[in-house]
This record gives sequence, structure tokens and C-alpha cells, in this order.
Amino acid sequence: MSNPAKYSLNSQKVAQATEEWLEKRNVTKQQIAELVHFLQVDYFPELTVDECIVHVDAVLSKREVQNAVLTGIQLDMLAEEGKLLPPLQDMIQHDESLYGCDEILALSIVNVYGSIGFTNFGYIDKVKPGILVRLNSKKDGEIHTFLDDIVGAIAASAASRIAHRKQAEREGVTTPPLD
Amino acid sequence: MSNPAKYSLNSQKVAQATEEWLEKRNVTKQQIAELVHFLQVDYFPELTVDECIVHVDAVLSKREVQNAVLTGIQLDMLAEEGKLLPPLQDMIQHDESLYGCDEILALSIVNVYGSIGFTNFGYIDKVKPGILVRLNSKKDGEIHTFLDDIVGAIAASAASRIAHRKQAEREGVTTPPLD
Amino acid sequence: MSNPAKYSLNSQKVAQATEEWLEKRNVTKQQIAELVHFLQVDYFPELTVDECIVHVDAVLSKREVQNAVLTGIQLDMLAEEGKLLPPLQDMIQHDESLYGCDEILALSIVNVYGSIGFTNFGYIDKVKPGILVRLNSKKDGEIHTFLDDIVGAIAASAASRIAHRKQAEREGVTTPPLD
Amino acid sequence: MSNPAKYSLNSQKVAQATEEWLEKRNVTKQQIAELVHFLQVDYFPELTVDECIVHVDAVLSKREVQNAVLTGIQLDMLAEEGKLLPPLQDMIQHDESLYGCDEILALSIVNVYGSIGFTNFGYIDKVKPGILVRLNSKKDGEIHTFLDDIVGAIAASAASRIAHRKQAEREGVTTPPLD
Repeated sequence: MSNPAKYSLNSQKVAQATEEWLEKRNVTKQQIAELVHFLQVDYFPELTVDECIVHVDAVLSKREVQNAVLTGIQLDMLAEEGKLLPPLQDMIQHDESLYGCDEILALSIVNVYGSIGFTNFGYIDKVKPGILVRLNSKKDGEIHTFLDDIVGAIAASAASRIAHRKQAEREGVTTPPLD
Repeated sequence: MSNPAKYSLNSQKVAQATEEWLEKRNVTKQQIAELVHFLQVDYFPELTVDECIVHVDAVLSKREVQNAVLTGIQLDMLAEEGKLLPPLQDMIQHDESLYGCDEILALSIVNVYGSIGFTNFGYIDKVKPGILVRLNSKKDGEIHTFLDDIVGAIAASAASRIAHRKQAEREGVTTPPLD
Repeated sequence: MSNPAKYSLNSQKVAQATEEWLEKRNVTKQQIAELVHFLQVDYFPELTVDECIVHVDAVLSKREVQNAVLTGIQLDMLAEEGKLLPPLQDMIQHDESLYGCDEILALSIVNVYGSIGFTNFGYIDKVKPGILVRLNSKKDGEIHTFLDDIVGAIAASAASRIAHRKQAEREGVTTPPLD
Repeated sequence: MSNPAKYSLNSQKVAQATEEWLEKRNVTKQQIAELVHFLQVDYFPELTVDECIVHVDAVLSKREVQNAVLTGIQLDMLAEEGKLLPPLQDMIQHDESLYGCDEILALSIVNVYGSIGFTNFGYIDKVKPGILVRLNSKKDGEIHTFLDDIVGAIAASAASRIAHRKQAEREGVTTPPLD
């Protein structure tokens, strides 16, 4: 870091990398939106998956979320390539149940939309619907120890966002308190 | 606080009050242990409810847990008596879905045993087995907005403790890393 | 809760109560803004206290923040009136150092603006500048065990918001990632 | 993961790697203990640095702490080697102030000893005494974006542990509630 003056954060690139890395790992916004729909359709029967995509997009636009996505995917990829030092390599490669840094990063995503998302995060992480099945299948040498929790957290956050927005709509408010 | 010198924390009394308040609210350790058993029996088929009680006791011996239990039950009771100021009274009385301080206090319990408990907490809070049915029934004017989350958190923490201990047993270690 | 259908969250009232309760406890937005200024002036020398007020207002508009403010002030007031059950009464009245539910609620505020606020929260809570001196003085029977942490957390959150916004300005972005 | 049956967590190796990696990064327990002493000497004037080492050891024996240490150091080292993908490489290399995953991992350490450690963590992370000066100097191409927060978190946790233990001693209790 001989010349720190040269460094300057480029938020556009961080946002873009987040989109690209999710794609590269074969996770689409449609798939995350389907998780959101699964979580919220009982409360809002008229909710469509298309509507959920808008909320997933909003969650993904937050820098805190982008940081967690990039960090988690990076660790998954390095584990796939066998480039982590043992015993970290072992723990991430095998999704060790006593290793919780994946849940920690995921929680930092959920927190941005407030504590009401904890329950949805834990629930979806346990029942593992939709895209979460593939992310947990551990087939073909793929490792998604971080990404499966992160995808669940994005879905839980989007669900929280919907809950806040629907309440605002109900009250006829145009600028909801949490976005 | 005219004479602060007189004050001195009595840990024994805090621990005792925690036990008494849970009893007064008709929550037994047996019931919490049944939640733990529900969460862990698939991983450890030989696990008994009696064994789970030991872990519930260990969780309840932590001061961080005792503080959350006392604070949560106190708010529930004041809400039952209608003694909170509006609109806080309304939100707690009706377990408002956009009010998340109950989840916050519960999370402080889960955290003590590490991040691996988040999933179990969210899951149990959503499917609401056993004692959680009654705590959510809202019958007879009872209010358990905080307590239902807290009981779920204690169960999730005890489940984490079991996971750590079982690993230690498997490795023949006598002093497990997280207790 | 004989007629739950009657209940309907009124967000306007929650927001209004937050403002009123802070006032009733003699905490002004100006004072919180001064804490924000204290935290950020080294990084942004041109920052004014008036500018900081805008950010304090934005933080206070979030429901997660409002919930924590109302819950914390309510507990402080009940402790002042001696209406909590022992030993909770004792611990809150004396700001017991091993009682951490006040920090827990404060952290739920900081989380909404992401993890970069933790440091500022801890720092300000320790050096206690400005309004935090009075909130910690424990004079005249006043109890602010929760409020002092909450005010620090609001200030730390507003500081995080400024950091995010200033970066967005620097990059010429009109819609910053975290608001 | 062609043969998952072969994998079995070796806790001893995780604990050992934690010690070795800290050493490799030139962080000694003595240095962490000095941070603990700095945080606690005002409250317990008779406290020695040697006594603090015992508490640092206890914190380091927790798996949640070991996981965070290994994950953080791994990311620092990969950043030093330039092996992370941009823009993550840039953000970690330059300790970007809007990147908060380092604080997130650190917080997971602090949480294990309860919320009373938040303040100490934030404070020490801001004033940066002792070893934290070097970890932040960014000299010779060294990158400690994660490790400086992690070391501060270990010190804050050890300080919490001391606070809990000293209270237990004062009350003549032999088995303190949080260890």
C-alpha cells in the first residue's frame, strides 16, 4: 500500500461485481425472489414473484449486503480451489456445523432490515426450499457454505422490506420508515 | 440512587428470580427441554429429554440469559396490566409484527452460544412446537410477546451447547470449547 | 386482546411518540447532532451541526430505531418510579455493569446502518461527551440506563449515514446504497 | 467432497492453528493481555498483565473465537498476496471504511461474552493502543484489516470475562455464570 492516495472506492464496481458473482455462481434474482414469495405469500396472497424481484434488487443495492455477498462467495471459491489453509479449508469445504462465520455474515445482511427478519432467515435456512436445495447438494465439487446462508439472508431481508412497505401502503404513507 | 454505595449485585438473587419468573409464567424446564429435544433428536437419536434439561439449566445459569429473561417477562407483565404508555402498550399487547425488540433480546441469548444457534432459533420461532403454542395463543388476556421468543432462544442455545458437547465427546475431550 | 381485529398499527403515532418521549426526557436533536459532529468533524472538517440534524432525523424515522427508543425510555421511567420487580429494579436503577440489555437495544439501532457504526458507538459510550454527561450523572433520581446507550447509538448511526452519503457525493451518485 | 464420511472435525487442530496463525502474524498473547490491562486497570488497580493472559487464553479456547481468528487472518493473508478478486481485493487491502465485514467477525467474538463488551471493543478500536498501532500502520505491505478488529475483540472479551469473574469473587461464588 505504498500509495494509498491512489485508492478510491468505486461503488459502481462493487455493485456490479455483486451481480456478476451471483450470476457466476448460478444464483438468479428470480430464484431469490421465489424464496421471498415462499416466505410471504401466506401473509400477502396477491404477492407475485415479479414484485419480489423489486425487493431483492433493493436489498442487493445496499453496500453492507454487497460486502457480505462478495466476501462469502470469495471464501466459497477459494475453498473449491483448495486454496485455504487447513483446518479452515476443511471446515468450509465440509460446511462444518460448528463453524458459524457463514451465519455471522448472513446475519449482517438481515440486520440491515431490522430484527424482524431473524425468524425468516432461520426458518428458510432449515427447510431449504427452492434454490437452497442445489446450494446444499454439494455435488460436482461445488462449495456454497457461505452462499446458501447469504441467499437465505437476502430473501429474509426482502421479506422484511415487504412487511414494512405493505404496512406503509395500508396506512397510505408514501415514504416508509425502513427501506 | 441517594446511596449508591449500598447497592451491590446479588447474583444468587438474579438467578433465583429467573427461575421464579419462568415458573410464575407457567414455563417449566421440562417444556423447554422438549423443544431442545425436538431440535436435536434427528442428529442424536439417543438424546433424552432429561439430558436436555441439564443443558437448559446450563443456559439459564448465564447472566446474559437471566437479564434477557427478566427484562422480557417484565415487559410482558406490564403489558398485561396495561401499564405501558401508548403506542408501546399497543405494539407489545398485539405482538406487532414490525416490533422487533423481542427478537433482539432473544438474539442476545442465542449469541452466547455462538452463531450456530441462529437457524434453530428462527426455525422454532416459526413452526412453534410444544409450549410455544400456548405462549402464542393469546388466550385469557395473557401476553407473551417477549417470552415466546426468549423460550425459543433458550432452546436454540441449549441445542448449540449439545452440538458443541457431542463433538467434544466424539473427540474424547473433557473440557469443551464452549460452555 | 378480545378483539384483535380492532388493532392496527399507526406508524405516525409511533414516530410522534418517539419525538415526544425524547423531549420529555430532555434530549434534543441538537444535542444528538452535536455528538454526531464530535464523531465526524475530523473526517469532514466542513460538517456543521445543522447538517448533522438532518441525519439524526433520518435515523429517527426508522421504525427499528423508534421501537428501541420507546422500549428503552419506558424501562428507564418505570425504574425511576420504582415499578419494576426486584432484582431488575436494582440492576436498571444502578446501571449495573453486568446488565447488558441496554447495550443490546442500542446495538439494534446501530445495525440498521451497518457494522461500520460499532466502533463509533463503543467510543462515544466510553468517552461520554456532550449530553451523555448529564444522562450519566444520575442526579435528582433520574435514571437513564437505557437512554444514554440509545442516544449514543443514534449518534453513531447518523455518523454511519454521513460516511455513506459523503462517499456517494464523492462519486457523484444521487441514490446512495444505505439510507 | 466425494467422501464426506472421511471428514471429521479435529478441534485440537483448530485450536492449535489459531495459536500458530496469531504467532505467524506476530501477535502475542502478552500483547493482547496488555490491551486487556489497559481496558480494566482503572476498575481493578491490582490487575496484572499476567492475570490478563489467563483470560486471553480462555477467550482463545472458544471455538467461535477460533473460527473468526482463522477466517480473518486468512482473508488478510490472501489480500497481502493479491489473490482476492477485485473489488474485494481493493477494499480489504485499503481497509475501506465502508467495508464492515471485519467488524462483523469481531462482533461475533465479543458476543460470546455478552453485550457488556461492545463498549470496550468500540473504544479500543478507536483509540488503538499498544499492538493495535502496528496492526494499523500498513507498513511493509502488511495487511491486517481483519486482525486489528479481531485482536481488539479478543481483548474486549477478556475484559468482559474479568468483569464477570471479579463479581463472582466479590460474592464468594466459585462457578461464575459466564466463562
